[in-house]
Amino acid sequence: MATAFQHLLTVGTKIVAVGRNYAAHAKELGNAVPKEPVLFLKPTSSYLENGGTIRIPHPLESLDYEVELAVVIGKKGREVPEATAMDYVAGYALALDMTAREIQASAKSAGLPWTVAKGQDTFTPISSVLPKAMVPDPDNLELWLKVDGEIRQKGSTKDMMFKIPFLISHISSIMTLLEGDVILTGTPAGVGPVKAGQKITAGITNLQDVNFNVEKRQKPGSS
Amino acid sequence: MATAFQHLLTVGTKIVAVGRNYAAHAKELGNAVPKEPVLFLKPTSSYLENGGTIRIPHPLESLDYEVELAVVIGKKGREVPEATAMDYVAGYALALDMTAREIQASAKSAGLPWTVAKGQDTFTPISSVLPKAMVPDPDNLELWLKVDGEIRQKGSTKDMMFKIPFLISHISSIMTLLEGDVILTGTPAGVGPVKAGQKITAGITNLQDVNFNVEKRQKPGSS
Ligand SMILES: [Mg+2]
Ligand SMILES: [Mg+2]
Ligand SMILES: [Mg+2]
Repeated sequence: MATAFQHLLTVGTKIVAVGRNYAAHAKELGNAVPKEPVLFLKPTSSYLENGGTIRIPHPLESLDYEVELAVVIGKKGREVPEATAMDYVAGYALALDMTAREIQASAKSAGLPWTVAKGQDTFTPISSVLPKAMVPDPDNLELWLKVDGEIRQKGSTKDMMFKIPFLISHISSIMTLLEGDVILTGTPAGVGPVKAGQKITAGITNLQDVNFNVEKRQKPGSS
Repeated sequence: MATAFQHLLTVGTKIVAVGRNYAAHAKELGNAVPKEPVLFLKPTSSYLENGGTIRIPHPLESLDYEVELAVVIGKKGREVPEATAMDYVAGYALALDMTAREIQASAKSAGLPWTVAKGQDTFTPISSVLPKAMVPDPDNLELWLKVDGEIRQKGSTKDMMFKIPFLISHISSIMTLLEGDVILTGTPAGVGPVKAGQKITAGITNLQDVNFNVEKRQKPGSS
């Protein structure tokens, strides 16, 4: 059972991430609260399993953490109505949307995509998949994140502006969702940098927790 | 043989697209010629097979075509040196990077990602995969595109600013490339709109050609 759910992340072909889905986080970065979800893609090659090491690419000194609820899609869906959207959910996971904030800031001011800021290897640390049956109320989960044991983010999915059925309906009106695809639902307030040598712990209270090391990535070609 | 190569597109998990890789196209859209490749992701759910119908989403009246050489990756690669980059190529295809230009323009001015402008279903029409052995000189291919039989784009891959080995090396320094992943290498000058009822033909001279219909997509919920 656990294995079948875990297998989903290996068959998925995309991660659709939602930006600015918690008003408090949009404001802390000085962004407007959006009228429709801000969407971007992360490649599945950016996944990192629980216990792994997040790599800060040269020449950056830090990456920003963003703790998020991941919705794991269980079957193909296109133009899914909100009323049946939850039928397309196989389970949930706790994910981090690691972000090279300086690269994202330059991209934003140049009108360029966020791919390099968001899509690098190890930039999507993710827990094992919790079957949907274990998560009766996904709209009322507490997400938390600590750096070296100190609390940095604590928020509830009840503060998401766009809820899960709406996100599934909206995204599937743009692109077909496939088995194993993941929706990252955005981060609550409290994002900030982690540096080499620090440890991140994060979780969904009473359901799931994960831990990751943070180290610099070796400069390409230096090995 | 043909089937094994075709199978690659079904196992791939990402499309990494390069923007502004031909100086003449960067200029026609009023963009600066970049110092490093502009990268963005398209989901594999946006593929459309030869002969299919490109769908213009409501309420748009047109989409822009961009004819591009697609490089199909044959094996996993991370931090691939330029010197061995061509070993990672399984073959080539002719692709269109369909773009909702108005949506992209608003996204650019708001500092937002291009996902909705570039990632919708049918936005990556693609030919069958030509095995690498059939394409001895990928840096000297003529790409062309016609709308209703009238020539709109004709360019040579020799005018790409960032060549294939550099692109593979650069992209794989950011994210692991996997078997079946595709790199879209950018478009030459001449991009423009297509409307419902028009037909696109496009090709790589002497090697490959494709044709696609263009129709409006039904408004979600209206069926
Ligand atoms: Mg995020
Ligand atoms: Mg993808
Ligand atoms: Mg393009």
